[in-house]
Amino acid sequence: MKANFSFSPVTEETIKDLIGIFGASGVSADEEKIAAYSKDEVALHLWEKRYDAEVVCFAENVEQISRLMKYANEHRIPITPRGAGTGLSGGAVPAYKGVELSLERMNRILELDMENLTITTEPGVVTSEINKAAADKGLLYAGDPCSGDASFIGGNVAENAGGNKVIKYGATGSHILGLEVVLPDGSVTWFGGKRRKDVTGYDFVHLMAGSEGTLGIVTKIILRLLPLSAFTVDLLVPFPDVQTALAAVPRVMTEGKVIPSSIEFIDRKSMVLTEKYLHTSYPYSGQAEAYLILQYEGNEREHLADETERIGDICIRCGALEVYVADNRTTRDKLWKGRKSIAEAVWAFAPIQLANEDIVVPTSEVPKLMAELDRMCDERGVEYVAFGHLGDGNMHVTIYLQREDAGWHEIIEGARLELYSAVKELGGTLTGEHGVGLKRLGYVPEFLDEAQIDLIRRVKLAFDPNNVLNPGKIVPW
Amino acid sequence: MKANFSFSPVTEETIKDLIGIFGASGVSADEEKIAAYSKDEVALHLWEKRYDAEVVCFAENVEQISRLMKYANEHRIPITPRGAGTGLSGGAVPAYKGVELSLERMNRILELDMENLTITTEPGVVTSEINKAAADKGLLYAGDPCSGDASFIGGNVAENAGGNKVIKYGATGSHILGLEVVLPDGSVTWFGGKRRKDVTGYDFVHLMAGSEGTLGIVTKIILRLLPLSAFTVDLLVPFPDVQTALAAVPRVMTEGKVIPSSIEFIDRKSMVLTEKYLHTSYPYSGQAEAYLILQYEGNEREHLADETERIGDICIRCGALEVYVADNRTTRDKLWKGRKSIAEAVWAFAPIQLANEDIVVPTSEVPKLMAELDRMCDERGVEYVAFGHLGDGNMHVTIYLQREDAGWHEIIEGARLELYSAVKELGGTLTGEHGVGLKRLGYVPEFLDEAQIDLIRRVKLAFDPNNVLNPGKIVPW
Repeated sequence: MKANFSFSPVTEETIKDLIGIFGASGVSADEEKIAAYSKDEVALHLWEKRYDAEVVCFAENVEQISRLMKYANEHRIPITPRGAGTGLSGGAVPAYKGVELSLERMNRILELDMENLTITTEPGVVTSEINKAAADKGLLYAGDPCSGDASFIGGNVAENAGGNKVIKYGATGSHILGLEVVLPDGSVTWFGGKRRKDVTGYDFVHLMAGSEGTLGIVTKIILRLLPLSAFTVDLLVPFPDVQTALAAVPRVMTEGKVIPSSIEFIDRKSMVLTEKYLHTSYPYSGQAEAYLILQYEGNEREHLADETERIGDICIRCGALEVYVADNRTTRDKLWKGRKSIAEAVWAFAPIQLANEDIVVPTSEVPKLMAELDRMCDERGVEYVAFGHLGDGNMHVTIYLQREDAGWHEIIEGARLELYSAVKELGGTLTGEHGVGLKRLGYVPEFLDEAQIDLIRRVKLAFDPNNVLNPGKIVPW
Repeated sequence: MKANFSFSPVTEETIKDLIGIFGASGVSADEEKIAAYSKDEVALHLWEKRYDAEVVCFAENVEQISRLMKYANEHRIPITPRGAGTGLSGGAVPAYKGVELSLERMNRILELDMENLTITTEPGVVTSEINKAAADKGLLYAGDPCSGDASFIGGNVAENAGGNKVIKYGATGSHILGLEVVLPDGSVTWFGGKRRKDVTGYDFVHLMAGSEGTLGIVTKIILRLLPLSAFTVDLLVPFPDVQTALAAVPRVMTEGKVIPSSIEFIDRKSMVLTEKYLHTSYPYSGQAEAYLILQYEGNEREHLADETERIGDICIRCGALEVYVADNRTTRDKLWKGRKSIAEAVWAFAPIQLANEDIVVPTSEVPKLMAELDRMCDERGVEYVAFGHLGDGNMHVTIYLQREDAGWHEIIEGARLELYSAVKELGGTLTGEHGVGLKRLGYVPEFLDEAQIDLIRRVKLAFDPNNVLNPGKIVPW
């Protein structure tokens, strides 16, 4: 099965037509603007070539987007929707030129419904504003990607963003009750709604989550909220070695009899780079080979104190060096600032890096994966740092070199492929939360069989027969 | 867009070929068996005609099912997969004759994984056996349909079954991590796996949930388990009138600061019928106009006692007549036996009924819906009972007549359509957990627009171009 990848160029005529849709202030062909809107946070040197849109449009409402998609089908012009550009897979990069469609002006929280415990937003709202709007009313929006202070909720939906609270609350998709969507042909429809259950037709709500803007453009989002717990406690737990830390996780859950809201993992190198980056230090600095962050929530301070004591005891019995309790805002902020800065710290100090991975394996297989990573990197003379959402088995591994060896690209690519092979062997997969996008497209066939890839293609064409919406992402042709 | 609904009949030759696939003991053309396997729990008088399969096959493994689907495509024979037959929408009824495929022999729990907190099963396992297997290891499988003692997990997946714990834990789809699926063309693939996160490709795991066996046949299921709380408390809370009961629900959640694992609703008539059916009585029998059942879980008996006292106070402040606490097995069993017997009690005592509804509205709109139902039934001279999963806004409404009036079918049909119109007006939908199936197919266009219906058709054909897998369900042509 093949799709049409021959598109028309954007001409002077096209620009005029786009101004007809978006107004003069909604269209820009300025070169600098195009360059700025044609990338995300995947480092530019990863691409063999530059992908620049021909024009950037700024949508203000659903009607404009509907008109744009009708126009795009008629003229065969590719449309790449874009949130805040914080993506890590090139999902918003215009692989086939055409129109880059920014949703940044659709940035209103439309409603916070205290009776149904929902919040309704446009796609261009910054994720942390949603967390904050909910918290102001004593409610929790449980989506918590590390990029939440910058990412847009629309991008979170497109990538099915994960983050720090997936083990307890699920990824972004779990929080979505309804979506207003412009379909690729320009029709506007609602999947789901302000309803807790819905089996009328297929579950297109969850199909949209993580579809990387290839099946429709989300223009309104209804999210489920929860009661906000009165108290939160975070534990920072250093371990003498990685394997001991990993082995503690299932026991923390089964013996602890509670799913923590976070189970994060930080290896020694990640922690050291982060301390350097933030000019600070954390306990057992440079000594602990691994740290866990565990987060618990409760409504009574004493109950929560009892619970964390119980969990702390389990950690110590599992071989933890110590258990640090962050039960006030200052220590908690310091802890999470560290966790959320790791990726930047790694970028800042690991000089030659390419493989920024987002692999997932069954949680039980993380120890084997880490052992394999040690062996493989030793053998290939490369280094790595690892951190991530251990409770979900979702590890961010960055493989890097200390200096720019000749052929570094091939060296790291070889390591990457060996890593993927180990991940697959362990029952894991390519990406847990960053997405396939443009960056990982070539590797999908390493993980999915031909029957499934063909199904992905056919579903894409069922939604978008002319392949005009975000072509070149997620769907291997 | 149209699909092929011209199928070939099952001949002597077909039967021989099927015996070649399933063996002689796996194929039956016995008339009684065919009749028994061609229905579910939708009352037979609902159908204008009988739908009988031509042959019943009993699968024992995935290879047989793969061969069957290849054969079905080649010979254009419709295949209707079937679990335990406890469905309430005719999803397993062979609308276009052909082969009824029973999964009852694929009834093994394959693995309970204490490290990853997962259970892997075949589709023909009874749901409550999964609950029990998990509980025996101190774990919770949170799927809890009222039919759980009889339904198969495969059917739960096909219908995205809801039940009593959706408000806290989500419907069946929320618990699925991976599915082995025979696609309509006979290829076998895995969607997801023993992984907590996965954005490699589209989210076909959740597309399968609730797709009513029209997109593939599920042959293995990996379900997420949770730590089992040490203690459970159920509250039975009678209210003087329906509206007071309904108004208490959002306050129980926001002021209570906890999502209960159940928020069930029973109206006076449902309770009276259930008492009669079970020869027992519940508090405030015949006096309370409405009851709530609230369930809470915790690991420390005293903490939970504190919590339920706090929740009880909120109920009383909201106008409850009393709060009964079921904190031991005997009282809890009696309470839930009542709740789970309502549907049977209604069948037993409401003589002429047709509209057994499964509507959903935003929780905040339930009071308006109930007021509208009162008005409408009064006006039309029909009666109703209502019970259901109030926390999800999912109400089971049965409209009935006391005696067989001439034209009862039209009377009830008129009431049904008026109810649907009110449901739609309130932002609700046709079915929350029972499914569209054959029973509700004609009503889908009342709730979904043409763009979405067309998308349903196109996705169906992307999976099943010859429309051989469970034709006549969920997809309006």
